[in-house]
Amino acid sequence: MPKLWTETVEGHRHAVRTAVLDAVAALVAETGFSGVSMTRVAGYAGVTRATLYKYFPDVESLLAAWHERQVREHLAGLEGIGRETAGTGRQLQAVLEAYALMIYDRPGHDTSTPVLHQGSHIDHAHQHLEAFIADLIRADAQEKAADLAMDPTDLARYCIKALSSAGSLSSRGAVSSLVAVTVRGLHT
Amino acid sequence: MPKLWTETVEGHRHAVRTAVLDAVAALVAETGFSGVSMTRVAGYAGVTRATLYKYFPDVESLLAAWHERQVREHLAGLEGIGRETAGTGRQLQAVLEAYALMIYDRPGHDTSTPVLHQGSHIDHAHQHLEAFIADLIRADAQEKAADLAMDPTDLARYCIKALSSAGSLSSRGAVSSLVAVTVRGLHT
Repeated sequence: MPKLWTETVEGHRHAVRTAVLDAVAALVAETGFSGVSMTRVAGYAGVTRATLYKYFPDVESLLAAWHERQVREHLAGLEGIGRETAGTGRQLQAVLEAYALMIYDRPGHDTSTPVLHQGSHIDHAHQHLEAFIADLIRADAQEKAADLAMDPTDLARYCIKALSSAGSLSSRGAVSSLVAVTVRGLHT
Repeated sequence: MPKLWTETVEGHRHAVRTAVLDAVAALVAETGFSGVSMTRVAGYAGVTRATLYKYFPDVESLLAAWHERQVREHLAGLEGIGRETAGTGRQLQAVLEAYALMIYDRPGHDTSTPVLHQGSHIDHAHQHLEAFIADLIRADAQEKAADLAMDPTDLARYCIKALSSAGSLSSRGAVSSLVAVTVRGLHT
């Protein structure tokens, strides 16, 4: 198979996948998880049901692929914020605030369907997030010449869990207060 | 039906239920959730399988009943600690430390089977716990003449989530550090 042909096929596959996952994202935002069906996704993405079934066997695999893409994008977004704010003394706060806002803004807050929180891609992303935040906690303590209250990995896990309560906050404005409450305890 | 007879029947039912749930607790502790079967529970509790099935139709309902009892006992335990330490200036810390230790010590830490975290009895217990901790946070701030950083209910949810990271701590000794990290942020 000539290289150009492969690239065209690959490019086409990627375009279909992107359109399908964009359709899932739009449907989740509009109607919640229960509004996602194979027929609706196909219609929204402008592909036939037969084509859609070639890419994804069922709604569960669609939601898992959409969730995986979303988690990857979120991680990349947080890393971007980390790079932009490095050395400002506000890096940790900025990244944690962005993370807490993602949780506050996500559809269904912290009540998303359990199926989405399984799977090795999420475990992997979670470990990646933990390591990333542990690094920021270390760098922040060094910058401020402060002593950490615990092992940085334990502190990263504490931060992630503590900020998951952003999902039940009564207002978006309370998110930065939650971040302040969370980071205040990191140093002794 | 004479009153005495009812009481005897009720008493007998209660004794069987207690023996069965004690058997579930022992099996969970020994072998984890996967080791709980109707046959093993009946054997452990000293009742026939026929009797067991009169009380619980399946393993799921057994685990749910055991979990409900455990949650209720834990809540009662925390409230007891709250009463014992009232007015000592350490009430909030003592209750949160007991809560975090429960999470650290529970079998499977924070990886218990998802089925156990559903059901209205857990929602109810969770709300009860939130309200109880929010009250302690209010009382603590008053005792220390300190200003709370956020709404007490939001702070209670933050504490509960933050302390759920106790399940992944590397040592039991780190639990009190985690509690100190968590409460340090409560006041402005």
